[in-house]
Amino acid sequence: MKSLTEYLTFNTQNRREYINITAAVERIVAKSGIHEGLCLVNAMHITASVYINDAESGLIADFDDFLEGLAPHEPASRYRHNRTGEDNGDAHIKRNIMGREVVVAVTGGRLDFGPWEQIYYGEFDGRRPKRVLVKIIGE
Amino acid sequence: MKSLTEYLTFNTQNRREYINITAAVERIVAKSGIHEGLCLVNAMHITASVYINDAESGLIADFDDFLEGLAPHEPASRYRHNRTGEDNGDAHIKRNIMGREVVVAVTGGRLDFGPWEQIYYGEFDGRRPKRVLVKIIGE
Amino acid sequence: MKSLTEYLTFNTQNRREYINITAAVERIVAKSGIHEGLCLVNAMHITASVYINDAESGLIADFDDFLEGLAPHEPASRYRHNRTGEDNGDAHIKRNIMGREVVVAVTGGRLDFGPWEQIYYGEFDGRRPKRVLVKIIGE
Repeated sequence: MKSLTEYLTFNTQNRREYINITAAVERIVAKSGIHEGLCLVNAMHITASVYINDAESGLIADFDDFLEGLAPHEPASRYRHNRTGEDNGDAHIKRNIMGREVVVAVTGGRLDFGPWEQIYYGEFDGRRPKRVLVKIIGE
Repeated sequence: MKSLTEYLTFNTQNRREYINITAAVERIVAKSGIHEGLCLVNAMHITASVYINDAESGLIADFDDFLEGLAPHEPASRYRHNRTGEDNGDAHIKRNIMGREVVVAVTGGRLDFGPWEQIYYGEFDGRRPKRVLVKIIGE
Repeated sequence: MKSLTEYLTFNTQNRREYINITAAVERIVAKSGIHEGLCLVNAMHITASVYINDAESGLIADFDDFLEGLAPHEPASRYRHNRTGEDNGDAHIKRNIMGREVVVAVTGGRLDFGPWEQIYYGEFDGRRPKRVLVKIIGE
């Protein structure tokens, strides 16, 4: 069994951003030399997500509206978590709605994707360096 | 390490359907000959889900009500995504609420399940052929 | 390829509880002797979740409020599922919002975690014995 582990770092300009990381993950899969296996991609911070959906700007805005509707950033007093001095209670909840991780099949040396699957990093409390883990195991 | 990758295709009659795919996945696990490993099952389209829950018709109707409550199909103008000419903005969001994939342990050559776990394909924009990937790795 | 599978059992005093199981999973990873691989942790019951987020009591209360807001326990008549004689329709839905499983990288013999990642068992219909599966594969 072979494996490769790498870490991507993101430092967004805005509190919330949605970044297509598919090409970066594909490069790590190619570097691994693994032909058949599984690829894990996960946020290492608990106020960010990794998810798979469309690279379409309208949809990304729809996701952001949806998440703000369910767990709005303001008022900070809405969240008990913010009594610790944080202001990111909403970001913890948004992260769990969108998920921490994806597991993708590696087949024939490539991400085994349907026609529109794209891997996104969803940042909900940015403006500081945060990491994403990519690990491939297989043969 | 051994692996097996197969693809299931679904073409539902209704826009939204919930299909129990447990037996189909079990057949692929048996065919793989893998005794200890992991089984990934994921939707390859971004308007459909794979999830695990109960094979009970009332619960399935509850899930559908819940998803329509959070991300209703109508009016189409509710979603920026639909300005592209699509009418499936809701389906993209429903898919992320219910999740893209499940990873199931394979132990002693079988899906290592609790008493009520059943694997479902959740279709939110059907009436056309769409695929599910099943990949098992292990020994 | 090596693998190890173990099962944890929880019997909570309350209907809903949130239990930090990180140390228990770490012990199983250490016992496995696996240095590079993947660790699957999943609820084996369909009214409970395994998720990763913060070990902070305010946040846990925020999650509970959020879930009760989306899928309240009362009135039981709200859920078609409860016509079967159950009263846990809400718990099935809460479980899918929070997720069934996490997949964690094992790197250098340890869970490869960011600074605040903690694994939680989320119980939504407790007061009876329920199991969590932990399986590590790798080398």
